[in-house]
Amino acid sequence: MPEEPKTERGRRTRERIVAAAAGLVERQGAEATSLDQVLAEARASKSQLYHYFADKHALIRAVIAWQTATVVDGTAEQLAGIDSWDGLDAWFDTLVAHQQALDCRVGCPIGSLAAELADTDEAARQDLARSFDTWAAQLRAMLDRLRDRGLIRPDADTAALAQSTLATVQGGLLLAKTSRDPQRLRAALTAAGGYLRSLAPLPGRAAP
Amino acid sequence: MPEEPKTERGRRTRERIVAAAAGLVERQGAEATSLDQVLAEARASKSQLYHYFADKHALIRAVIAWQTATVVDGTAEQLAGIDSWDGLDAWFDTLVAHQQALDCRVGCPIGSLAAELADTDEAARQDLARSFDTWAAQLRAMLDRLRDRGLIRPDADTAALAQSTLATVQGGLLLAKTSRDPQRLRAALTAAGGYLRSLAPLPGRAAP
Repeated sequence: MPEEPKTERGRRTRERIVAAAAGLVERQGAEATSLDQVLAEARASKSQLYHYFADKHALIRAVIAWQTATVVDGTAEQLAGIDSWDGLDAWFDTLVAHQQALDCRVGCPIGSLAAELADTDEAARQDLARSFDTWAAQLRAMLDRLRDRGLIRPDADTAALAQSTLATVQGGLLLAKTSRDPQRLRAALTAAGGYLRSLAPLPGRAAP
Repeated sequence: MPEEPKTERGRRTRERIVAAAAGLVERQGAEATSLDQVLAEARASKSQLYHYFADKHALIRAVIAWQTATVVDGTAEQLAGIDSWDGLDAWFDTLVAHQQALDCRVGCPIGSLAAELADTDEAARQDLARSFDTWAAQLRAMLDRLRDRGLIRPDADTAALAQSTLATVQGGLLLAKTSRDPQRLRAALTAAGGYLRSLAPLPGRAAP
């Protein structure tokens, strides 16, 4: 039976296997990634791999958790610091610069996994839905802050706005990856930011 | 050497193979789809398949062309008829109703293929980029019509707006597919429509 690592050395071995798998899945997709490739990339043995993972399916779920920690938790700090339009624009600039640095390869690892696995791996789909929900919750907290500061109307539905902002980011990343053109992402983010700005309280109307 | 069908019967055989492959790829992805599965689904022989396609790679490119004809050309007529906000909303309603009818499976076949293949199959990536460009051109023509009718400001960048609208549709489809919740797509489309409406000419300002 696979188990959680009990020692620091075991923890490092497990992490090395998951990180290697995540890199392969990012470059070529989950279906195309074989356990033999993962072992070669991680310089790990079959017995080490099966010590921690029952099968490839379990490893892919660990990759989803790893990418969620990297991508979603990785943006948490930046999103938590946004309390102005300038702050939002700075986050958008970071996203575009990151894609430019990657030559628009990869896109969003969570989005790519979701596109590939949502219809074929129900457990993975649920994991990925939770990853998106975590991301949307971070966005919503940021939008609530903009609303509390009077930048967005008090009656704005920040839960729906968080979903639409996340959708626009994901779609922009997909178009940028397909065209290798970061300006597709830029256009999407300009629209996402423009829509939020259009929800500013109407001028001349007193705050409630 | 593979060749184009010369007879009506040959054309139908080729079409049957591509449609079977498209259905399998839609349900399980390109990488997970084997030629044996395609042959079984299409009730075709290996010699029939290799008569029209050199290899799986060529078949996948035919699937991309088939899905582009189905999805992108399929929306052309509806997009060409939109000349008001009501018309735009009706198209958005169609998209949400279609996902509801599919229980939010599949999402956009073009988007799913792009997410899976953009980093591993350069010829497929270029095909898919052209599919998105065709779609964006249809959206731009629709937005130009809205602008010419005075619904959108004359100086609005309709090329960029077409890209951002397409991105928001794609992202909304991905979130809906991952969560099995059509309201994620609805939220994205509300934002896309809301942003376009926010670009209406300013009230009280004379038309140029």
